[in-house]
Amino acid sequence: MSSAVPFFAASLPTASAEADRLLDPDELEAALRNIGARRYHNLHPFHRLLHGGRLNQDQVRAWALNRYYYQAMIPVKDASIIARMEDASLRRIWRQRIVDHDGEVEGDGGIERWLKLTDSLGFSRAYVISTKGILPATRFAVEAYVHFVRERSLLEAIASSLTEMFAPKIISERVAGMLGAYDFVSKDTLAYFDKRMTQAPRDADFALAYVKAHAMTPSLQAQALGALSFKCDVLWSQLDALHHAYVDPGLPPPGAWTPGGEAIA
Amino acid sequence: MSSAVPFFAASLPTASAEADRLLDPDELEAALRNIGARRYHNLHPFHRLLHGGRLNQDQVRAWALNRYYYQAMIPVKDASIIARMEDASLRRIWRQRIVDHDGEVEGDGGIERWLKLTDSLGFSRAYVISTKGILPATRFAVEAYVHFVRERSLLEAIASSLTEMFAPKIISERVAGMLGAYDFVSKDTLAYFDKRMTQAPRDADFALAYVKAHAMTPSLQAQALGALSFKCDVLWSQLDALHHAYVDPGLPPPGAWTPGGEAIA
Repeated sequence: MSSAVPFFAASLPTASAEADRLLDPDELEAALRNIGARRYHNLHPFHRLLHGGRLNQDQVRAWALNRYYYQAMIPVKDASIIARMEDASLRRIWRQRIVDHDGEVEGDGGIERWLKLTDSLGFSRAYVISTKGILPATRFAVEAYVHFVRERSLLEAIASSLTEMFAPKIISERVAGMLGAYDFVSKDTLAYFDKRMTQAPRDADFALAYVKAHAMTPSLQAQALGALSFKCDVLWSQLDALHHAYVDPGLPPPGAWTPGGEAIA
Repeated sequence: MSSAVPFFAASLPTASAEADRLLDPDELEAALRNIGARRYHNLHPFHRLLHGGRLNQDQVRAWALNRYYYQAMIPVKDASIIARMEDASLRRIWRQRIVDHDGEVEGDGGIERWLKLTDSLGFSRAYVISTKGILPATRFAVEAYVHFVRERSLLEAIASSLTEMFAPKIISERVAGMLGAYDFVSKDTLAYFDKRMTQAPRDADFALAYVKAHAMTPSLQAQALGALSFKCDVLWSQLDALHHAYVDPGLPPPGAWTPGGEAIA
């Protein structure tokens, strides 16, 4: 299904100098956490505006509309990872991620909870699900993530999920900030994040243990660190695009949703 | 090599309403040209700044550095298209594109001419070729283009090249504007564009004739129009990212080249 040779390998960012020697597992974990401390998207100006209540409703709408595509593709990404696992015990664990996002029944799961947020912001579901109003940069970043887990090694695919180590901090900041700042969001419409507060750490613990156990050479450790940097880029570039299109200078590209657009009830 | 089923098909932008009925070949060409008139990146503010002499040298450097990755991947994109052609006569024609970019001998070809531009702007070749300073959004957009021509139909892959129909206009504006406005570029360092003034129309003529001959149903015409819109998004999003990182607000993402960076001699 996916090529064994990652055709972009030569040009993708290489890992930090830390991986020139073999790190012990705790050092590797520290190096991974250091990437998050420097590159995770909680540091992006757009998130600071979002959490600080300094966005208007249309800017929050743009964020929720675009991030829907990321949420919607997470099970596709996770199924792509499962498809590369030859060990049933690994697949059993990883498939919980698909269950979390897709739910057990219609109307359940993380994607559905995200749609409750876009509902509450006035978008029609058909418009959101069509993804026709999202920024091309959102689409390209999310697709890059899916292609990455198909084309790179299983170790890199798993390591790219490790941004979840940093998720609880940003989620707690986000929920508190948004509830306090915006009268158009509520605890109910932010229910997606409640679930993630327990799901993300459980998923991250497993993935971190896997990476620490399997990245046994400097080269493999460099790959794991590079995969986490790549994933930080995937998240960061989505906020860059939102910031450019809807905050400063505020120039949505042709075809993207514009404030006041027809999809808002 | 590539999947027969494009997994992003459902979510990619659909074509314009014009394709709801069968267009005759001239109408199809007009619809394709209309996409260019509305979405080609000559309309982007960054290009207007570039051509109007209103960028500083570092901003021109960032443009040349990032666009190197696009140039460097064009032969990979074209080889991916050739790999899908079952007709030797088609492959013979398309392979000229690889010759144009890679040259007949070391030191020849479009990529080499692009490196002469980055040389003249002070970058070391090793730094440019490493692509480690480019914006993640550049990488994701260029990769999206390569994946598109591998995963979509041959008609869509060929139609996505049709931005070359619009290239001569932007190139003539660019060369005249840049030569007049910047003392750090010369006719020699912009030699890449001289060649493209004759190559692009030749390539576009062939691709346009192919699309007009093969898009024989409303659905295929919609695919061709959608492919050209997609390609306009690939080009536009690269300028969005440059504008955000280096013009307004001027916030390069973590890891990207920053003005005054060490790679400048």
